[in-house]
Amino acid sequence: MVDKTVPDIVVGRLPRYLQALQRMQQEDILTTSSQDLGERLGISAAQIRKDLSQFGEFGKQGTGYSVSFLVNQVQEILNVNKVWDIVLVGAGDLGHAIARYQGFSNRGFRIVMIFDADEHKVGKQIGKLEIHHVSNLKEKVRAAGVKIGMLTVPASVAQKVAEELTEAGVQAILNYAPVPLSVPKHVRVQHIDPIIQLQHMTFYLE
Amino acid sequence: MVDKTVPDIVVGRLPRYLQALQRMQQEDILTTSSQDLGERLGISAAQIRKDLSQFGEFGKQGTGYSVSFLVNQVQEILNVNKVWDIVLVGAGDLGHAIARYQGFSNRGFRIVMIFDADEHKVGKQIGKLEIHHVSNLKEKVRAAGVKIGMLTVPASVAQKVAEELTEAGVQAILNYAPVPLSVPKHVRVQHIDPIIQLQHMTFYLE
Repeated sequence: MVDKTVPDIVVGRLPRYLQALQRMQQEDILTTSSQDLGERLGISAAQIRKDLSQFGEFGKQGTGYSVSFLVNQVQEILNVNKVWDIVLVGAGDLGHAIARYQGFSNRGFRIVMIFDADEHKVGKQIGKLEIHHVSNLKEKVRAAGVKIGMLTVPASVAQKVAEELTEAGVQAILNYAPVPLSVPKHVRVQHIDPIIQLQHMTFYLE
Repeated sequence: MVDKTVPDIVVGRLPRYLQALQRMQQEDILTTSSQDLGERLGISAAQIRKDLSQFGEFGKQGTGYSVSFLVNQVQEILNVNKVWDIVLVGAGDLGHAIARYQGFSNRGFRIVMIFDADEHKVGKQIGKLEIHHVSNLKEKVRAAGVKIGMLTVPASVAQKVAEELTEAGVQAILNYAPVPLSVPKHVRVQHIDPIIQLQHMTFYLE
């Protein structure tokens, strides 16, 4: 059903639709419209209808969408109607905060392994997970078949770790290190850099 | 010089150009081209030339750009040729990690105040900064004239804190809480949500 030729910018909006829809579920809202959804997200109703129409027919003109049906459909499109295992590399302050974050599991993800290069951290636990030494990364990640990595390592080693993750079979990397990564074409990378987003806003400040 | 009618999507790319250019400076590279820059960023040379041309003439056909000149120009366009003060609200795991992060100052930002609602945290220090109680937020932020806020609070209180920041004069909010914020038109909001970015990638995974 999923058409991988859909523009990436459309794909990038779907998680935000899903988030808003799941919030509606929490609020016991049973049906919604592209207008409702648009108001919550600051996106036009026309844009939302156009985006969703790329994937099929999910509602009828005038009657709106069933929230739970649309949640299921968008989850299926995004491949998050299952739980994905994640390997986290870098057990510093940020790595600890992420490993302890409780918000992953109900949105399709769980961290299953943590690695660090610091001998003093290896063997310690974050929650229920033990920190392993990066020298074991390739072997352990490959054996577990983990496809998603999160990088919370210093910028200077991010490229090297990304290569090891890729060699171990990881196909998607969420990179918190403020450096671009060079990876094979079949590997997707998303960057999280607060400063990039702050600088985007200062443009508009006086 | 800066034209605020430039499309926001172009503005959003400038911080990435700046990051790549500053990396070139660290590598002692004196001149660059839209090709070089494009290769580092995975953006076409034509796109980069077109984006930069929105703001003026920064290089000559064939001779390329002076890296330091372009860094200065892009910093000026983005308003980061100064250091912006930031107020951080939420001194949990993530707030601590961000407050301790050393990478802000050389990219135009510094956290100057931290607030939390937990009486047990108030009065404690993160680095050189004392944690204040949120009940003092409006007064202190207004008095200091801080224009940028970072929210690392639970989702349930994010909207309330955003309103207080706005009332205190904050005009840009970087929101780590996984909820949309409703703010006045003159306030910009950027969201950081790792799960949104992970779900964007799982679309492409098998």
